[in-house]
Amino acid sequence: MKEKDKPIKIGVAGLGTVGVGVVKILAAHGDLLAARGGARLELVAVSARDRNRDRGVDLSALAWCDNPVDLAARDDVDVVVELIGGSDGPALALARETLKRGKSFVTANKALIAHHGKELATLAEEKGASLRFEAAVAGGIPIIKSLREGLAANAITGVHGILNGTCNYILTRMEREGLPFGEVLADAQRIGYAEADPSFDIDGIDTAHKTAILASLAFGTEPDMGNLAIEGIRTIAPVDIDYAAELGFRIKLLGVARQMEAGVETRVYPALVPLAAPLAQVMGGTNAVVVHADFVGRTVYEGAGAGEGPTASAVVADLVDVARGCGGPTFGIPAGSLKTAKAIPADAHEGTYYIRLRVEDRPGVMADITAALGREGVSIQSLLQRGQAAGGGVYVVLTTHKTNEAAIKATLKRFTGLDCVLESPTMLRIEEV
Amino acid sequence: MKEKDKPIKIGVAGLGTVGVGVVKILAAHGDLLAARGGARLELVAVSARDRNRDRGVDLSALAWCDNPVDLAARDDVDVVVELIGGSDGPALALARETLKRGKSFVTANKALIAHHGKELATLAEEKGASLRFEAAVAGGIPIIKSLREGLAANAITGVHGILNGTCNYILTRMEREGLPFGEVLADAQRIGYAEADPSFDIDGIDTAHKTAILASLAFGTEPDMGNLAIEGIRTIAPVDIDYAAELGFRIKLLGVARQMEAGVETRVYPALVPLAAPLAQVMGGTNAVVVHADFVGRTVYEGAGAGEGPTASAVVADLVDVARGCGGPTFGIPAGSLKTAKAIPADAHEGTYYIRLRVEDRPGVMADITAALGREGVSIQSLLQRGQAAGGGVYVVLTTHKTNEAAIKATLKRFTGLDCVLESPTMLRIEEV
Repeated sequence: MKEKDKPIKIGVAGLGTVGVGVVKILAAHGDLLAARGGARLELVAVSARDRNRDRGVDLSALAWCDNPVDLAARDDVDVVVELIGGSDGPALALARETLKRGKSFVTANKALIAHHGKELATLAEEKGASLRFEAAVAGGIPIIKSLREGLAANAITGVHGILNGTCNYILTRMEREGLPFGEVLADAQRIGYAEADPSFDIDGIDTAHKTAILASLAFGTEPDMGNLAIEGIRTIAPVDIDYAAELGFRIKLLGVARQMEAGVETRVYPALVPLAAPLAQVMGGTNAVVVHADFVGRTVYEGAGAGEGPTASAVVADLVDVARGCGGPTFGIPAGSLKTAKAIPADAHEGTYYIRLRVEDRPGVMADITAALGREGVSIQSLLQRGQAAGGGVYVVLTTHKTNEAAIKATLKRFTGLDCVLESPTMLRIEEV
Repeated sequence: MKEKDKPIKIGVAGLGTVGVGVVKILAAHGDLLAARGGARLELVAVSARDRNRDRGVDLSALAWCDNPVDLAARDDVDVVVELIGGSDGPALALARETLKRGKSFVTANKALIAHHGKELATLAEEKGASLRFEAAVAGGIPIIKSLREGLAANAITGVHGILNGTCNYILTRMEREGLPFGEVLADAQRIGYAEADPSFDIDGIDTAHKTAILASLAFGTEPDMGNLAIEGIRTIAPVDIDYAAELGFRIKLLGVARQMEAGVETRVYPALVPLAAPLAQVMGGTNAVVVHADFVGRTVYEGAGAGEGPTASAVVADLVDVARGCGGPTFGIPAGSLKTAKAIPADAHEGTYYIRLRVEDRPGVMADITAALGREGVSIQSLLQRGQAAGGGVYVVLTTHKTNEAAIKATLKRFTGLDCVLESPTMLRIEEV
């Protein structure tokens, strides 16, 4: 324990919300963290764009680096915390430089890990340094640790997560207030809950980065954005939220990583989840992850997905682990053993589906619809027709029994070819997790 | 990494359900566990009462110890897994002997850790051995790891858990089937879901052991059963479950550990939790824990609380951590720094309350009741009176605004003294977690 009394000296790159949170935790819990980690966590240097901005924390005693990459080279820095963001550029340069020098690297940067995780893990393990990224997925929920360590006795079979607070917030308000997507998005942007350019969140890219990381930890594959089919929530209409509720479901944007016979399926899509399922209970900006594994069965993890305190909490937990000398390979198995994920074609997806059609309100329509389903071997689980559709005609909403996505796509093509179908059908997957 | 290629040799004491689960996981996932832990986990010796019982697993290649304590002394055993149970006796002897020899000790034994945690942690830390007990609380949910490591950046403010599957199963069936406690218990015993002597579960002792452990990890206090006020679920009547539902609550047996100004409150009691709260969604044998902490806010953990696979999953995760050399103090801070928990008198408990009275059905009764409340400064949040009570009279059910337990006890005493009150009042706490 003697050697451990030496403080761990920390350099932080990026002083946005999360960076400031890290500074606050290190200041507020100095003694507690020293007791837990076996060494004081001492912030010695920072790097950020604007030196003069008032961030509400005292940085006067700290060294300042204009170039974040310089943090790695400082003799007085043992561990670098990267909160700059971006998959490449200075974040990547800083990661490489830090790990090359055998110093540990803690980051909240999902894009960096999703795109360069294997390279960086390999470097870290070669150099005997730690590469940690608990804050990169689901903010304060210790889901990386749970997959990497807590569930280490299991073969994981599936991971389903609500991983983007902005999307879940928008879907929650659409449901509660009956408002269309665009209106809620605009309001979320006005109050700072969605970015000016919201694409990263609402088109599912952020969820995809996180899903790629979870898949890697769960299945021992290298993080791979290339294999990830991504759909966002722009196309979700209030009418689908209503019909979903009527059928006993709620619509959530999910990151899905699933072990299939042919390989690992990794996808992002809005899905119907049963109202009684844990993921359906997760409202607003909260994140949650459901893990299925062979011996432990289903475990669920829920908490704040973003924000100063929760994300900084994850960063500092990683620092405590570094102080404790908790090792173990970055992605749960040695980087050199990470397999290349085998691409599973989207068409191979097996599951149940929700389809909404706007059709002419006349005899024979239902016969045409059911015939189209029958020709593709898709069987109906439930069917609703009620009231008038906006824009004329009526909505027909159905859910299917288990089938594959190729059959659903072929069915949708048949629907589109029918005279009675008045607009492009809406299809959503159902996830009974 | 070279040194790590040496296998970790394991001795298992106790071959009941969980022990057999551990044998199965080690056999099923040998390669995966070696990749994750950096060393093979090799089972070399076992100890159990009956050598000839068919347990459905092949034990023929293993050394057999009639006395479990002998496992600790074996040169070919590096780590001992204790699944015997009991706070003292052979489990304690084995723990002491194993740790004294500087070997790591993994256990699922909540009674052992709740009663002797500090002594054993001190010994482990002196000898540089690991003492691990993820399986002791909430089966497969990695809640020990989450408190000890994942939330290490936070001051924890409260822990609320559904920690006993038997109780939650009984309460779930009472609600769903409208049956009285005794009938459901008898049926649970018949199908093996409750023990022949059920006291340990239904009187809250098992939950108390687990709560003592969680409190220690959360608050840096030594595990202390002495300070734990314990109430079980025997007194829960179907009528309370019904009224709770009408008021928007569900009754759950909770282990509660809460930081208060004067110290840490640790208790076990059945409580009303709001229907929309995560703990209210937890049905059947499932366990769940809600943790409140200063920076991360609320996080929730849910999964199977018992059973072969889930509990063995936690045991083997601890073994992987031992193989990885993940250190850190047993209870999150060094054993020598664990504070003695300061007893908080039950009367100091602050919260809201549910009270059910059976009273005479005549004018003036409500005035007597409200006067009694008023005299103790307890204010009513909601009040129900409806229909006839079994046994005559009517039920009056009320919930209070925030008050303390001393005031509630004084109020109950006043109620008991009223002529119009026909039986001893029922009081339950409300937990808005």
